[in-house]
Amino acid sequence: MTHTYLRKVNYYETDKMGLAHHANYIKWMEESRVAFLEQIGLPYDQFEEMGFVSPVVGLSVDYKTGCTFADTVAIQVWIERYTGVRLEVGYRMTNSRTGKLVATATSQHCFLQDGKVVSLKKLGTPAHEILERAVQPEE
Amino acid sequence: MTHTYLRKVNYYETDKMGLAHHANYIKWMEESRVAFLEQIGLPYDQFEEMGFVSPVVGLSVDYKTGCTFADTVAIQVWIERYTGVRLEVGYRMTNSRTGKLVATATSQHCFLQDGKVVSLKKLGTPAHEILERAVQPEE
Amino acid sequence: MTHTYLRKVNYYETDKMGLAHHANYIKWMEESRVAFLEQIGLPYDQFEEMGFVSPVVGLSVDYKTGCTFADTVAIQVWIERYTGVRLEVGYRMTNSRTGKLVATATSQHCFLQDGKVVSLKKLGTPAHEILERAVQPEE
Amino acid sequence: MTHTYLRKVNYYETDKMGLAHHANYIKWMEESRVAFLEQIGLPYDQFEEMGFVSPVVGLSVDYKTGCTFADTVAIQVWIERYTGVRLEVGYRMTNSRTGKLVATATSQHCFLQDGKVVSLKKLGTPAHEILERAVQPEE
Repeated sequence: MTHTYLRKVNYYETDKMGLAHHANYIKWMEESRVAFLEQIGLPYDQFEEMGFVSPVVGLSVDYKTGCTFADTVAIQVWIERYTGVRLEVGYRMTNSRTGKLVATATSQHCFLQDGKVVSLKKLGTPAHEILERAVQPEE
Repeated sequence: MTHTYLRKVNYYETDKMGLAHHANYIKWMEESRVAFLEQIGLPYDQFEEMGFVSPVVGLSVDYKTGCTFADTVAIQVWIERYTGVRLEVGYRMTNSRTGKLVATATSQHCFLQDGKVVSLKKLGTPAHEILERAVQPEE
Repeated sequence: MTHTYLRKVNYYETDKMGLAHHANYIKWMEESRVAFLEQIGLPYDQFEEMGFVSPVVGLSVDYKTGCTFADTVAIQVWIERYTGVRLEVGYRMTNSRTGKLVATATSQHCFLQDGKVVSLKKLGTPAHEILERAVQPEE
Repeated sequence: MTHTYLRKVNYYETDKMGLAHHANYIKWMEESRVAFLEQIGLPYDQFEEMGFVSPVVGLSVDYKTGCTFADTVAIQVWIERYTGVRLEVGYRMTNSRTGKLVATATSQHCFLQDGKVVSLKKLGTPAHEILERAVQPEE
């Protein structure tokens, strides 16, 4: 499953080069991940209410072309890999105005309950099935 | 009492006009306020450990001249007014490179304990004396 | 004229009190102002392409109740006052989930062309008419 | 050569988990990189005045343990690799209070002049020698 999240670039996100500063992409990744989780039926605020948190344990970004104020970035987001203990999310950002690739990225996440790393699979929580069902099929 | 907090403007704080974006000033106010509280003997992390929080209930900023990457802003910070229930903090930001006035600002704060507004004065907490002693004398 | 801009609170906008940090409101004001300008027919990116910029010269915010991740804030935005040289924008933020007032705010702006303060009125630019027409009628 | 940049975690950098939000680390990387460049004799503002910019083309971060408000993070920064066309910077962040490893990271950069990718080596600019001299010797 893939979700596309549209994000307008804000003025306050530009820097003196006239382009969106690279640190903002990390925030866009989070926004699109949250939208994706909502779409698959696992809104992150409800996941937290169940007693879980899912911190970022790693991320990487490849910056391709810049984007700027008033541009809209289409962020495709999907689950790259999910093991019950680890979640890897993939992102592909395209500039809707120019059609150019803006960036590709991945983020890795674990799951915590009461501050301890847990396996959603072993816990048998419904969240596990939702994530497993949402894994992107290999093409 | 007055404290001067020196703050380098970061690249990521500039916007496409080439100047520090105005939203950053609010963060600088917080940084300088925290440094001030530490200097008068009331570090904010310890204040929170005592069970208090002190949210911002209002603020206003007058923007005078811009500043940019690699500039250092000298932020003078002081207590404008303190009643036990309310705290008003004053700020005066000057560009160390040019000597020009960057901004003047104030922020208003209340005090919460267990989510309820409290009077530090009535509680007789040492924090009250520290704040009262630190009030800027009228000139 | 009044525009309502809906803004979801992002996870990265919360702080350790569990609420959206107060500095973010300044960014939401900019986002809603940009959406308002687009709606009245003066998109800010086109305004900049005409050779103008409109820096913030002042702002003030009254914080009423907190809001947090996954809340949606409805930001009502309008022109409070416009003279050709000065623009004052008003904001009223309401939590769509709770119905509570989140904040009220104003921001003041001037207009620059080639780095110099100008009167849009004296310049006779179409931007002047658009802004004048959009001024909120007194009730 | 290695530089250590000390960075206090700000209140506004924490999120509702009570820890510094992961997006801030990207900003700390930039701050420490700028401090490093200044220390080796290539202040980034002067590099830009020479007509160059050096955008981030990639980055990756491994998050190890959290850090929070009032913690100080010691960021060790060095040049991992430099070819004249590409620069890779390495980072190692440690919590000064706990001694724990906070994160390790790398960022990759190219060099632009008038919007075009250039080789600092081919241009024979003094910046090239400075960077080459600063490369971390293999251990």
